[in-house]
Amino acid sequence: MYVPEVNEKLWRSKREEAYKRFLEDIEIGYVDRDVRELIEFVFTKRNVFTTSSCSGRVTVVDATYPWLREEADILFKKHDSISVREILPILNQKALHRLWLIVSGPIIHFNALDLNTAIKLLTIARNAGFKHSGIISIGSGGIVVEIVSGIWVPFLLKDGDEIMVKNLEHVVNLANNMLYEGKAKLEKLFKFLRDANI
Amino acid sequence: MYVPEVNEKLWRSKREEAYKRFLEDIEIGYVDRDVRELIEFVFTKRNVFTTSSCSGRVTVVDATYPWLREEADILFKKHDSISVREILPILNQKALHRLWLIVSGPIIHFNALDLNTAIKLLTIARNAGFKHSGIISIGSGGIVVEIVSGIWVPFLLKDGDEIMVKNLEHVVNLANNMLYEGKAKLEKLFKFLRDANI
Repeated sequence: MYVPEVNEKLWRSKREEAYKRFLEDIEIGYVDRDVRELIEFVFTKRNVFTTSSCSGRVTVVDATYPWLREEADILFKKHDSISVREILPILNQKALHRLWLIVSGPIIHFNALDLNTAIKLLTIARNAGFKHSGIISIGSGGIVVEIVSGIWVPFLLKDGDEIMVKNLEHVVNLANNMLYEGKAKLEKLFKFLRDANI
Repeated sequence: MYVPEVNEKLWRSKREEAYKRFLEDIEIGYVDRDVRELIEFVFTKRNVFTTSSCSGRVTVVDATYPWLREEADILFKKHDSISVREILPILNQKALHRLWLIVSGPIIHFNALDLNTAIKLLTIARNAGFKHSGIISIGSGGIVVEIVSGIWVPFLLKDGDEIMVKNLEHVVNLANNMLYEGKAKLEKLFKFLRDANI
């Protein structure tokens, strides 16, 4: 069957570039520490590298709907547990649309040189509980596999002037538990990647 | 590069099977009417068919976390707008874990005969706003493309005995608006599929 060719030379140069960026990001303290080891491990492999990754985070955004990206204002972002003390001042800000506190689980983008590696990655991800993973593009620059769990939960804090949350402390605790669930899944993925021969 | 072969004979028999099941589902009124026309259209194509599809829905589930499937009890399910009158009695039920009202946007699984068709589908889906779509498996039975939007929002109604929702009417209205956003996206996808040469 017809298969778009991955240009290996282009792919190798993209890998070099991604690795350089990763080292620079470490230098400036930009790399999310919970995912650093996994990325380093993947860079020891010949046929795959990571382009972007997040170990999970909590954000507060001002947007009509929580799934919007371009139209959303990010008011808060943290890759670690949150506290009521951090969130309360935001709750008192005026909301243009709606304030959503969003917990996101880990997301990693892999770029694979060949379809075989991409399919292996998908299988590993699925077994590790990342059920929403898929190949999101195939082109001369490589095969991009998005590995993502189902952990993504928005909490409505405020709609216009009206505060919609009944018990902020409860939401904060729940958000922290969800974030932790995501980090545990990432650990599992790392273990499965190490055990597999990718 | 290595590509797992799709067995065309197997694929054709799976397509026949899916079509038969679709006709039976129509017969017993099981087919979600908002997605029926789209499926019928796809069955006029030679190299792709749909296996499962949902035009979007509202559920209420009892589960520790809203992303859980096997461990969740579904207490309510509707593919149309909901009302406070429908949800209120559920709110008064005892929750084993937590009660979540979940709005899900449309999800469609396509099975493509070749990678070229799968990639075309992905591009169409992305352009229509289904940003979370991907190829989720490749095997002898075909290439499965999951087309899904970012519309998936759980609202925490109750945690154990404690009611967590402050304004149920507000949540119900918001859920209906989100459901509508999803149905509008599905319309757009249908239009894009008709316009494209898949």
